[in-house]
This record gives sequence, C-alpha cells and structure tokens, in this order.
Amino acid sequence: MRNFEYYTPTQILFGKDTHLQAGSLLKKYGAKKVLIHYGGQSAVRSGLIDEITSNLKEEGLEYITLGGVIPNPLLSKVREGIELCQKEHVDFILAVGGGSVIDSSKAIGYGVANPNNDVWDFCLKKAVPTGCLPIGVILTIAASGSEMSSSSVITNEETKEKRGCAKTDYCRPKFAILNPRLTYTLPQYQTESGCVDILMHTMERYFVNIETMEITDSISEALMQTVIYNARILMKEPDNYSARAEIMWAGSLSHNGLTGCGTGGGDWACHQLEHELGGVYNVTHGAGLAAIWGSWARYVYEVNPERFAQFATNVFDIPCGTDYKETALAGIEAMENFFRSVKMPTSLHELGLDLTDQQIHDLAFKCSFEDTRTIGVFKQLNMRDMEKIYLMAR
Amino acid sequence: MRNFEYYTPTQILFGKDTHLQAGSLLKKYGAKKVLIHYGGQSAVRSGLIDEITSNLKEEGLEYITLGGVIPNPLLSKVREGIELCQKEHVDFILAVGGGSVIDSSKAIGYGVANPNNDVWDFCLKKAVPTGCLPIGVILTIAASGSEMSSSSVITNEETKEKRGCAKTDYCRPKFAILNPRLTYTLPQYQTESGCVDILMHTMERYFVNIETMEITDSISEALMQTVIYNARILMKEPDNYSARAEIMWAGSLSHNGLTGCGTGGGDWACHQLEHELGGVYNVTHGAGLAAIWGSWARYVYEVNPERFAQFATNVFDIPCGTDYKETALAGIEAMENFFRSVKMPTSLHELGLDLTDQQIHDLAFKCSFEDTRTIGVFKQLNMRDMEKIYLMAR
Repeated sequence: MRNFEYYTPTQILFGKDTHLQAGSLLKKYGAKKVLIHYGGQSAVRSGLIDEITSNLKEEGLEYITLGGVIPNPLLSKVREGIELCQKEHVDFILAVGGGSVIDSSKAIGYGVANPNNDVWDFCLKKAVPTGCLPIGVILTIAASGSEMSSSSVITNEETKEKRGCAKTDYCRPKFAILNPRLTYTLPQYQTESGCVDILMHTMERYFVNIETMEITDSISEALMQTVIYNARILMKEPDNYSARAEIMWAGSLSHNGLTGCGTGGGDWACHQLEHELGGVYNVTHGAGLAAIWGSWARYVYEVNPERFAQFATNVFDIPCGTDYKETALAGIEAMENFFRSVKMPTSLHELGLDLTDQQIHDLAFKCSFEDTRTIGVFKQLNMRDMEKIYLMAR
Repeated sequence: MRNFEYYTPTQILFGKDTHLQAGSLLKKYGAKKVLIHYGGQSAVRSGLIDEITSNLKEEGLEYITLGGVIPNPLLSKVREGIELCQKEHVDFILAVGGGSVIDSSKAIGYGVANPNNDVWDFCLKKAVPTGCLPIGVILTIAASGSEMSSSSVITNEETKEKRGCAKTDYCRPKFAILNPRLTYTLPQYQTESGCVDILMHTMERYFVNIETMEITDSISEALMQTVIYNARILMKEPDNYSARAEIMWAGSLSHNGLTGCGTGGGDWACHQLEHELGGVYNVTHGAGLAAIWGSWARYVYEVNPERFAQFATNVFDIPCGTDYKETALAGIEAMENFFRSVKMPTSLHELGLDLTDQQIHDLAFKCSFEDTRTIGVFKQLNMRDMEKIYLMAR
C-alpha cells in the first residue's frame, strides 16, 4: 500500500430540515455578506431559495443571489460571479445545488481570492491559486461529491474544453448541508446519472494496479453495493427517504478521499474520457461515464484480471473460479446490466451520440492534449488507446 | 435513521517515515514553541524522541519535553503539564504516544486555554472549555482513536475516578501522523488490547436500537472484519507492516465519527462499565472492555436479537436461521472466541481481578454516580443492571 494523506475538514450536517441551519453555520464561519449561488429556476419555484434568504435575514446576514449555473458549468458564468463578488464585497459563497453549482462557486472563490490571475489559467495549470473565498453548500443533487472534495471542473465554452480547476484544500467547503428530501424532485435521469457518478468516484480509486488496503477495499465494495441497491429502489420510489439518504451520504464518502486511502491516487481515465464528451457534446456527466466505463474496463482488465474478479465477487456476489478473466468479464457485464436496469446508457449511441470516425479521432486528440499526455494508471493510455476505447463504446 | 453531524478536520499523514514531517506540519499550523508530550522511556530508548527533536530543530522550532504519562493518564500529570506550558509559553502540544498521551495533551490544552477554570471541573461537567491549545499527534499505539476524536479520558488518582473530559471540537488534533512501523515494538498484550478497543469503538456505535444506515452498518462490519483478521496475524507476526497498517487506520476510522453516522450516538455502556475498572483497579482499557463485553451482550441482546443476529452473520459469517436469538448468541460467542484467540480476557477473573460482592457493588454504585444515572441506549441500565453485569462477568 502507498503512504497517503487524508484531509476532510468539511463539517457535515445531515438530515431532515438541516438546510434551515445555513444561517447559523454561515455566522459560525464568519460570513458577513453572502453570495447565494444556484442553478435553474427549480430552486426558486420550490421555495428553497426563499427559505434560505429568510433564514439568512433572521441571522442578520447580508446576501445577494446569482442563479443560472448550468450542468457542465461555464467559464463565462464564473467570470460573471467573480465580477459580482468583487463589486458587492462578498466574503462567503453559499452554493445551493449539485456539482455544477459547487464547482462554479469554487472557481469564483479562486477568482476573487486571486485577483491578479485569470481563473482559466488555474484550469490550464499555468498558475496556482493561493487562496479561495470560503464556501458553504446546501446540496440538492447527490452525485459529484464536490461538497467535500478539493476538486472542481469548469467548461470553457469558447474552446469547448472541460477541465479540472486547481485541486487545493483552499476550496474545500467549510460546511455542507445534506438534506435528502431536497433531492426528491430530481428527474429520474439525473438521479441515476448521479448514482453512476458516485460509483465511478469509488471505481476510479478502486481499479489500481498496486497492493491496496483491505479496509479501503471493503469500504469501497460496501459503498458500491449500497449505491447499486438504492439506485434501483429510486427507480420506483423517488420519495424513499432512506434510499435518498444512503445515496446522498455515499456521494460524499465516495469523493472525500476515504475510498482512496492507500491506493495511490486512482486511475481517473474514465473521467478524462468523459470530460471530452462533456466539453464538446454537453452530455450529463454520470450518463457519459456509464457509456464509457464498460469499454474502458474490457480494454484494460487483462492487465490485472484478479482485481476485476475481486470486484465481481465482492460487489456482485459472482463466485470466483480459477479463471480470473472469466469472473472479471462477468463482473463488467454485471455492472453494465446494473446501468441498463437504471436506464443509463452503456454506449455512446445510447447516450445520444452517433459519432463519425473523425469525431472520435478528434475526441482522442483533445483528450490526449494533442497527443502529448497519457491518462490512467491501471493501464496507461495514449491517444491510440483512447481512440480505441471511444470506438469500442460507439 | 437519525440526523447527524460529521466533522473530522484532523489532517492525517499515513505511512512509512511520515513522522519526519512533524516539524513542517507544526510550522504549517503556526507552532512556535512546542511541548513534546510522551509516555514511558521506550520512546526515548528507541530514538524516536531524538528523531523528533532533531526534526523540530531543523525547522527552527523551539520545544520542551514532558514524559512520564502512564496508561489511564493521571490528573496530577495534567496539572504538571498545564503549569509547565504556562511557565514556558508553549503554543502547541505534540503528543507522541497512544490514547493516554493524547488524552493527557487534550486536558493540558484545555487547562492552558482556560486559565480561570480547574481542568477537573471539565470532567465533572461543572464547566465547559471555550478553547484548547492546538494539538498534533505522532501515534505509536493503535487503539484509542483519540488522534481524530473530540474525546479524552482522565483519571483522578485521589478520588479514583476515571472520567471523560469535555467533548468539544476544540481539542480535535490539527494533524495526526500515523506510521505503522512505530507500533512494531508494542508488547502483544498492548497490541491486542488496542484491537479490542478499536472493535469496541465500532460496536458501541453499532449496537443501537433504532433504524440505522445501511452504508454505516456495512462500513462498520467491514471495519470489524478487518480488525479481527489482522489482530490474529499480529499474534504471530508483530512486524507485519500491512497488518499493522490495517489496524492503525481502522483505529482512527472507528472513532472519528464515521461508524456512527445516522446511529444516534451509540450505546457506550461497556465503556462506562470499564471506566470504573480502570479508575479503581488500573486495568488496561481494551482488556477491561473484553472482560465485560460478553456479559453485557448476553444481558441486553434480547431487546433486539435481530441486531445481534445481523452482527453474527455479517461479521462472523454465521448463517442466520429463523431463530434470531440463537444466531445472536452464536455471534456473541464468536466474538468471545476471537478475544480468547488473541489472549484477551473474557471475565474479570481472567483480567486478574477476583472481586468480592461488596467490591462489585461499589463499582456499580460508582458507575451509576451513586445510583443517580443510567447508562446505555440499546438497553438503559440502572445500578442494579450494572451490578448484575459485573457479576456475570466475574
């Protein structure tokens, strides 16, 4: 096992009605003027934004609002947020939403705290931020794990690039409020895409080609089983509190570092392959991951079939015979069958993309930063490998 | 499931040679003058204290040292530490040891930061601290989980009372360095006592009588299986890095809150029953817990045999028939058999205590605060119940 660092300072408040504690938490963390940052009009129509503003008023906090963040959040919105925060002297951002809103908030926070840098330079690794406005979260979508993570992903709509912004502890939210009821109204497709994203945050860390920790493996396997079981329940019972709660907490645990302890960082090839799809074709992140994963897995599993066999046995209860490859393939198929059972795509076609050879070549060219980088650690993938996986997924 | 809060801000550095990063971490967290607080002479003889002082010197940090903390750490030592820190203007405590040293450091930290209070009043709940000196940890015993927890336990040698000190976030260590190699030289009895303590921190939270979270249950069950498996390995191979690492990380996870998410706080009756043993007879904490647990379990399991049956099945792979009670009892026996396999006591006699009826009565009288409180939530226990459990454990 590898040495590791584990740092998850975000204070979590989990359960019914917890969002009404936002004001007191903001005060505890020293907020005076808050940007309430959110996505679509559903947060307004549902009355959530009103509840929050009332709560902040009661606590004597000043605030402004900025809505309109879209999935695969845009750099232009980030720039708008930075300008607004500077003009209004905002000292705290309250993200009300899912990964897109939280990621947009993190990028805005970086921009405000580093006025001498262009925020996109942090995504291009041309500069490193030295701070971030403090961020709090009221989570309404269980998926990204951004509420406890140090990462964020922004899309530059001009260059059609979707890139991870700086990965620093500065942007880890001070607190995150997780009320499972706030996810009841999410459309089924978004709910299940979220479940795939949660699974993938664990699988990216699980599929490594080194000796891992038993305790990390078994926590990861338990987490995957929980998500699979409850994602199926939510297909029929979107208002099942218990299932929503299990998925929501799994979402935070899957990306706060716990499932990566001792595994040396993880693979992340599927995320990179999906980011190109998201940047160019604006697909839903989790669905894009589902469309890619099976092809990636079949392309790489022979490097270490035993690891995939362990996955098959411990997550899907598939008996492991002497032939690891056979068990490995059965495990990959079981995961794809799960994806199908929750109406997630297992190919680009099912994702709604019918791509030409040239379009696939262009994706691989972009994903490899014009053939200058490899991705993945379970198996290192160069541009040719990426192209093959996209083709397999077609 | 209950609403919950989860807050684990301690930065963890885990792995080989990580203790050599103590100096840089202390500087990161703003230390200028450090109290290096430790236990017995083994930390000096092994060269560990020398390595640490060299490391702090290299980083330009001032320090003083205070050794001599004993298991079931004493209030008198805490008072000595407070006085020393005040005299020397210490601004950071580096605890080098296990639970006793860390708990002693927390109590010293409370004392220094609250000069108008007597520190024992925090243990008697007569006062609440409003701060604590910042604490860092180099862990040398995997057991207490104090390196990530908000709790500490101090023994008043004059009154023979062992009491939890204030439970606040102020005392959570800023960082904890976990190098499994530093635990190699621990005697077998201490190692295995530590394993029992780790199991108990999870079991105290697991055995509750309310609807729990599936994900918390399965993480707890995975953690218990990991500890049981690796505790047995350490009986034969005390230098097995992997086994030491699994136990060490399990120790932190078992007490940082993760295994209690949604379970409403836990039972903690066994810990209370053991604290009286520790306070009066100075037994090793984990061994004391092992001596009590089986009797507690048999006394309470009929309140919810299904919960104990789940434990039997998911931790010990005991097939669950229709008779939950039978499965429950088999699970309790399996845990006791595990205790025996790692040479842990399953009775007070095996713990080295042959107590008279009067002595047992006195323990129950003390544990019930002179018949004024109950303990436990799985089943609430009054003084009569406590006495019966001590008698069963005799």
